[in-house]
Amino acid sequence: MEEERLVTQVTPKSEDFSRWYLDLIRRTELADYAPMKGMMVIRPYGYAIWENIQRLLDERIKASGHVNAYFPLFIPEGFLRKEMEHLQGFAPEVAWVTQGGADELEERLAVRPTSEAIIGFMYSKWVKSWRDLPVLINQWANVVRWEKVTRPFLRTTEFLWQEGHTVHETYDEAQAETLRILDMYRQFVETELAIPVLYGRKTEQEKFAGALATYAIEALMSDGKALQMGTSHNLGQHFARVFNIRFEDHNQSLQYAWQTSWGVSTRLIGALVMAHGDDSGLVFPPAVAPFQVVIIPISIGNWKENTLPRAVELRSRLERVGIRVFLDDRSEYTPGWKFSEWEMRGVPLRLEIGPRDVKNNQAVAVRRDNKEKLIVSLDGVEAKIKGILDGIQASLFDKALAFQKENTCQVSSYQEFKSVIENKRGFVQAFWCGSEECEARIKEETMATIRVIPLEEEKNQKGKCIFCQKEAGTLAVFARSY
Amino acid sequence: MEEERLVTQVTPKSEDFSRWYLDLIRRTELADYAPMKGMMVIRPYGYAIWENIQRLLDERIKASGHVNAYFPLFIPEGFLRKEMEHLQGFAPEVAWVTQGGADELEERLAVRPTSEAIIGFMYSKWVKSWRDLPVLINQWANVVRWEKVTRPFLRTTEFLWQEGHTVHETYDEAQAETLRILDMYRQFVETELAIPVLYGRKTEQEKFAGALATYAIEALMSDGKALQMGTSHNLGQHFARVFNIRFEDHNQSLQYAWQTSWGVSTRLIGALVMAHGDDSGLVFPPAVAPFQVVIIPISIGNWKENTLPRAVELRSRLERVGIRVFLDDRSEYTPGWKFSEWEMRGVPLRLEIGPRDVKNNQAVAVRRDNKEKLIVSLDGVEAKIKGILDGIQASLFDKALAFQKENTCQVSSYQEFKSVIENKRGFVQAFWCGSEECEARIKEETMATIRVIPLEEEKNQKGKCIFCQKEAGTLAVFARSY
Repeated sequence: MEEERLVTQVTPKSEDFSRWYLDLIRRTELADYAPMKGMMVIRPYGYAIWENIQRLLDERIKASGHVNAYFPLFIPEGFLRKEMEHLQGFAPEVAWVTQGGADELEERLAVRPTSEAIIGFMYSKWVKSWRDLPVLINQWANVVRWEKVTRPFLRTTEFLWQEGHTVHETYDEAQAETLRILDMYRQFVETELAIPVLYGRKTEQEKFAGALATYAIEALMSDGKALQMGTSHNLGQHFARVFNIRFEDHNQSLQYAWQTSWGVSTRLIGALVMAHGDDSGLVFPPAVAPFQVVIIPISIGNWKENTLPRAVELRSRLERVGIRVFLDDRSEYTPGWKFSEWEMRGVPLRLEIGPRDVKNNQAVAVRRDNKEKLIVSLDGVEAKIKGILDGIQASLFDKALAFQKENTCQVSSYQEFKSVIENKRGFVQAFWCGSEECEARIKEETMATIRVIPLEEEKNQKGKCIFCQKEAGTLAVFARSY
Repeated sequence: MEEERLVTQVTPKSEDFSRWYLDLIRRTELADYAPMKGMMVIRPYGYAIWENIQRLLDERIKASGHVNAYFPLFIPEGFLRKEMEHLQGFAPEVAWVTQGGADELEERLAVRPTSEAIIGFMYSKWVKSWRDLPVLINQWANVVRWEKVTRPFLRTTEFLWQEGHTVHETYDEAQAETLRILDMYRQFVETELAIPVLYGRKTEQEKFAGALATYAIEALMSDGKALQMGTSHNLGQHFARVFNIRFEDHNQSLQYAWQTSWGVSTRLIGALVMAHGDDSGLVFPPAVAPFQVVIIPISIGNWKENTLPRAVELRSRLERVGIRVFLDDRSEYTPGWKFSEWEMRGVPLRLEIGPRDVKNNQAVAVRRDNKEKLIVSLDGVEAKIKGILDGIQASLFDKALAFQKENTCQVSSYQEFKSVIENKRGFVQAFWCGSEECEARIKEETMATIRVIPLEEEKNQKGKCIFCQKEAGTLAVFARSY
């Protein structure tokens, strides 16, 4: 993680995007650096977003028939070794426990980088018959990957995530689950985070170690780089063969089971910062904002006697209809200071109440996203505020979608490809012959990778590979990425 | 953890309590053994209870002004070393990470056994002024303690818990917080888990390594042994001095801060099993039961056409008012099998619907706790079921309280003390002079420890120490414990 420094002022986004991101996260108390390499502390303001993400995504996970469970943090090395492709994919990133109390362990324990191996072993004990299928289990947990280059939320040694692990009777059922989850992620991210995504299949190079196929949702951050927001893997029978997950089918014959796994992580919080933030700071969509409304009483005259009681009453009214409100009644700060503080912290809507507003039974509402100011009568204020919040949620998505469209183009020459990637960035659609060599050379020369092969593009496309000019049946989406 | 064996039948509780506990947990799929020493998998049926506990306790934690955050899993050894008392308390139980990827680490990292050290360090960065206080932060997390003897839920190498860590300006505020949390735990456990507790202070021997004073809630399990259900520590300025948590007070002078920490864990699930379970299996209080109601359609005749639709409708009606319902419509099992299966799994209320019930617009309700059977008309069934569930919750508490009272006695001779501890068990109140030696000798000779010194007993008591016969001002509560 970058070296620590005291953040008093946030570097403007237009000046240095990367510095702006790091400054903002610490200045707004979303997170802080921990004193260990690549680790962070998620502070209450940041964790509140994760709680909202958890609640909203968990509802969707359960509504689609899944249940939660908890598997161990440690995985014996032998379990990872059973599956060499998987071990090789993760070995450089594993933190190893070698001592318990005063004793050296006979076998090293991996701190889970992901849980396919330990869950596969347990499933082999639980799955015996078609009656036991499907198994639809999800886990909310911490995982550890010993990363070389880290950045708060985007890539940290430890992060929080959910990982779904399912078992099915047939390939078709596993594939349907893989795509159902991909679509659940797309809907969740677009609806709740107000971030539009592209979705599709990853190439063989980019897929998960041990998967048959990996699917992902990808979004464009406001610096034109792509961020992988979530993945859904069809694991085929790979882990079932390694861990011997077999069931008696309807014809009393033993079959290896078919599996999927899928996850999203605290990285989504970084995406919110980078997709919606501006020079004044964070901009959170109301659906996941820690506070949706901040009420600031104008502290002049006898404000504690005259204005504050109305602010308190307003808070109660809004909270009663489920709106998350913070009333900033601190007397050691001025209203002006509070305005810019909460602007920087990205609260979707500010409500100011001063003596004149009390007299007129109103509040002044200021939207964070477009700074629009409007007078709101306190009669039926609950419905009005809900309406404004819904409007902000929709606007943020529309704005991000317009940005994505502006920054997505199709190119037909490598010259053009390189120029767009270098100067404009964004998603670049280009034909690709499917060879690993072209993919690797493009990455080497431009730092752009294939983010996804869109599902609808997988068939019936014809063109020439942007790199080798050979016949190509795949219109892939390239970008530089985090 | 005890060796694995296939559980087809559960050992009766009256025959072997310990075997009954282990059999029941695996047979009802609350948890399973993991293939690593002392670790378990919390299966969906068990994890659903933890989710209910989390939701209900988190509401109370937040209602009292606390917010959640997330601190790192790893703690550098040097941080633990800074506080020798704390390190010595936990060193034998620490799992150490010594390798990251291919590299040996320069400094070992402890997998957190508890988080005072890392949180103390972060607080020293965040707390500068009285304006920053109080800090009222809680964390839901996994922790690891390398235990020698383990038992699912009660003592496992890894467990899930919440740990609150607060910072205050004065001793009085920290002490008030410590006792406020103790009372929050008491209310939570008695109200939601239907388990009555004793509460009070721990002795110096039994207190948390590094605390000024530890307070605990203790409950009696149905075998007469005590279980510590939660602890709340007044940490004094101990960690503040070690980690240099200082603030500028109202007079611009620098002061060390006062702290508390407190936690409950997945051990509470074990308590539910041991406090309420009987020879027929688990008995869950409705407030935290995974399913509060199981509906079993009687599968005779054209049940799928005639009975099942009414069962489906009943499920919807109950779910609409927030009742957690499972409709067991599997055709591969008989109603009789389902009755005993769900009885064993502890669902508070069973609703049977057969052809006659369809005709009479009714269901047969059977309470799990007392096996009482009653006919319930489907007119206004929602309110009736809610009423029955409330009744079950109250009955379970009353029954457990009666048990606790029957099994609590005051003794005045060491002879009597030993006899009760050996034969009847339960809570034994006895005067204690306060010396560590008497405490240690009693433990050695009887395996009984001082569970708590009740708060109201701390003053104005006079008697003779049960062991040494010297003047004693403390009426302590002894028990054998888990």
